[in-house]
Amino acid sequence: MPLSASPAFLAALRQCFGDQCSTALAVREQHGRDESAYIDVPPPVAVVYAESSADVCAAVQLCAAHQVPLIPYGAGSSLEGQLLALHGGISLDLSRMNRVLAIYPDDLCATVQPGVTRMQLNAALRDQGLFFPIDPGADASLGGMAATRASGTNAVRYGTMRDNVLALEVVPASGVPARTGTRARKSSAGYDLTRLYVGSEGTLGVITELTLRLYPLPEAVAAAVCSFATLEAAVRSTIAIIQMGIPIARCELLDAATVRAVNAYAGLGLRAEALLLMEFHGSPAGVREQTELVQAICAEHQGSAFDWADTPEQRSRLWHARHHAYFAALQTRPGCRAITTDACVPISRLADCLLASVADAEASGLPYFLVGHVGDGNFHFGYLIDPHSAAERAQAEVLNQRLVARALALGGTCSGEHGVGLHKIEFLQQECGPEGIALMRALKQALDPQGIFNPGKVLS
Amino acid sequence: MPLSASPAFLAALRQCFGDQCSTALAVREQHGRDESAYIDVPPPVAVVYAESSADVCAAVQLCAAHQVPLIPYGAGSSLEGQLLALHGGISLDLSRMNRVLAIYPDDLCATVQPGVTRMQLNAALRDQGLFFPIDPGADASLGGMAATRASGTNAVRYGTMRDNVLALEVVPASGVPARTGTRARKSSAGYDLTRLYVGSEGTLGVITELTLRLYPLPEAVAAAVCSFATLEAAVRSTIAIIQMGIPIARCELLDAATVRAVNAYAGLGLRAEALLLMEFHGSPAGVREQTELVQAICAEHQGSAFDWADTPEQRSRLWHARHHAYFAALQTRPGCRAITTDACVPISRLADCLLASVADAEASGLPYFLVGHVGDGNFHFGYLIDPHSAAERAQAEVLNQRLVARALALGGTCSGEHGVGLHKIEFLQQECGPEGIALMRALKQALDPQGIFNPGKVLS
Repeated sequence: MPLSASPAFLAALRQCFGDQCSTALAVREQHGRDESAYIDVPPPVAVVYAESSADVCAAVQLCAAHQVPLIPYGAGSSLEGQLLALHGGISLDLSRMNRVLAIYPDDLCATVQPGVTRMQLNAALRDQGLFFPIDPGADASLGGMAATRASGTNAVRYGTMRDNVLALEVVPASGVPARTGTRARKSSAGYDLTRLYVGSEGTLGVITELTLRLYPLPEAVAAAVCSFATLEAAVRSTIAIIQMGIPIARCELLDAATVRAVNAYAGLGLRAEALLLMEFHGSPAGVREQTELVQAICAEHQGSAFDWADTPEQRSRLWHARHHAYFAALQTRPGCRAITTDACVPISRLADCLLASVADAEASGLPYFLVGHVGDGNFHFGYLIDPHSAAERAQAEVLNQRLVARALALGGTCSGEHGVGLHKIEFLQQECGPEGIALMRALKQALDPQGIFNPGKVLS
Repeated sequence: MPLSASPAFLAALRQCFGDQCSTALAVREQHGRDESAYIDVPPPVAVVYAESSADVCAAVQLCAAHQVPLIPYGAGSSLEGQLLALHGGISLDLSRMNRVLAIYPDDLCATVQPGVTRMQLNAALRDQGLFFPIDPGADASLGGMAATRASGTNAVRYGTMRDNVLALEVVPASGVPARTGTRARKSSAGYDLTRLYVGSEGTLGVITELTLRLYPLPEAVAAAVCSFATLEAAVRSTIAIIQMGIPIARCELLDAATVRAVNAYAGLGLRAEALLLMEFHGSPAGVREQTELVQAICAEHQGSAFDWADTPEQRSRLWHARHHAYFAALQTRPGCRAITTDACVPISRLADCLLASVADAEASGLPYFLVGHVGDGNFHFGYLIDPHSAAERAQAEVLNQRLVARALALGGTCSGEHGVGLHKIEFLQQECGPEGIALMRALKQALDPQGIFNPGKVLS
């Protein structure tokens, strides 16, 4: 397909969408990139702002008729090049579809449009005593979070988007919306279309509505920081916590350098050592029981006394800092971009995988940050490269390749939560093998025979 | 495709499988039916006993070459006609692939062959302090449980097969095994092939290996029975328990008639009223906290004092009785078969759906039993029909149709855990609409272009 759109297509787009369509360069450029390290790809030919499912249907039908690629756009916070217009086409911006359509407090679920962000949903839920736990670093859109099968700091207890999407409305290649799933908690009714679209990264169609599981706000919440003299001690404590089956709500690792970056960025005074940032949810007695067990485990590994965040404000400041570790780290090297890794391994292999990768990064001399949803066995290095240095980029890619090879050899996955996008296509091939990739290709071909949905992502 | 196999195919089968292949009528008849109400379909032309993934590959390749249907067979306990050889072909019996391949206690998971049954796995785990929670009534095979996305009494706390399968090996139409997923707890690596095969009922390929999540045996377990003067009071208590977010491990409903059947079958002396059979897992303090809350809720709804099953033996007797409710009910009408329903609705609509369906069943005059995994909003009527009476069968079908229509109107699903098989194909169409069915058909066509895998099931 040509990277430049035909005049006939652009005319049809303008006729259909009028003011909801923009071809201004600044708008297109903003939509043609994400938070990943820059790759030099021209922006989409136009940006369409969908305001309804009907708009999405019209855009899909138009793109299908003209064989033009369509890239769904939520909040622009993806990390693996998911939004790059590799084969041209339009960006379909869903941020105006941002209504919370229904909250069902009695059924612990809500139905939202895809442009609603996670913070917006939680603000809407506050009066109901409910919350939605999935929290990638950015205030991502829920449609985008479903598309990348996102998770975040609460996944160790509450699961990922895979576990928390009950039902979807999607617009597939036919341009006619389909419903997948229901509001029932479980179902054995046919193929699991919901789970197929969760994690499909816009390559099988556009998500236009989501029904999400909610949880009662815990009666008691406690958060604490525990510092460790070594990274290994922090990791070994985490492994013990998980293996004991303690229902910890959050268990996050930061290495010493990242702690320093976060301190500088958020004005915190955390001890500049590897630390675990933990949260406990439950009844007051249940939280007490969990924290006593976890304190004992951390003490066995020479962890510091727990530093408690007692008020909601203190907790929110801590988690805000954790969520901004990525941006905090970027500021330690002005002008840099981060090549991020996203491996996830079985918990028993976490120390092996993480420590070998640290040694590798140290030996390279590249600056990096390290954070981890270690309760899930998931961690992120961010190699902070000069985007204009081909040598540094190559060095970071080699580190990432070795890390992924290490994770796969240990029974893990190349992506815990960021998705495949453009940057992890080869890693996906290594992980799934030719037979797995063949099955995925067959699905893509079946649901997107013309290849209009986000072409060149997930599969090459 | 012809119902009778060609002599060339049978000769090739014998040459390939020798003694592992049987064409004896009794063997074929045993493999050509399941636990569902009898439908007059000839048995498969042959039964092949697979002993390895390589055997499965050979069988798939042979069936593909000769365009002969292949129906995977586990323990024969499916309920929706999944095993009927509607279009002829062979039954591929996987019960000899019954080895627990690896237990990873530190990662809380295990890898098994598909013929391992749930009880066999739990026996193998006993020394490790771990268990696998999914428990459909029968001692089903784990491959079959994955294929039907089974759940059971523990799903309210531990989820279903959807949530507890980490990875699979499957043999698709190519006849070459593919691996889906890894042992990592979460992943965003490409399309969720694992979830696509979970619930595919043998229509997309054959599951030859499963990696399953395990859980530490709870420190404390308490089980109790609470009787209620009315079904409604039992259901309203359940709704309140779930809406409060109490992490109850099991919450099962039996109506009075079913309690009587279970008493007679298992020699129990349960009060012949509607009852909730509950179990609580956690630390001793956590269990105490949960049971106090639930007792208070049940008392508000005029439930009886809790009758505790204190020892493992007492608990196991109770749950054995619950798991055999189906067979207990069948014995109340000698020679009968059960037409079972399987709707699942959002918890807030459970009372509406269940009570209207009871009124409908009562008005019909057909004998029935009623059990429910009510914590999930899932319940089963079994209409006990004379299999030789077309009138009774028609009457039961009408009741089921009305029940499904009711469940769908309330935001629910036609199948909570039994799958679609042969008997719920029309209900699936109603639930998913033409657009959802079109997507499922496209998937089936993509992964099984020749239509050899369990044809005529899930989709017509």
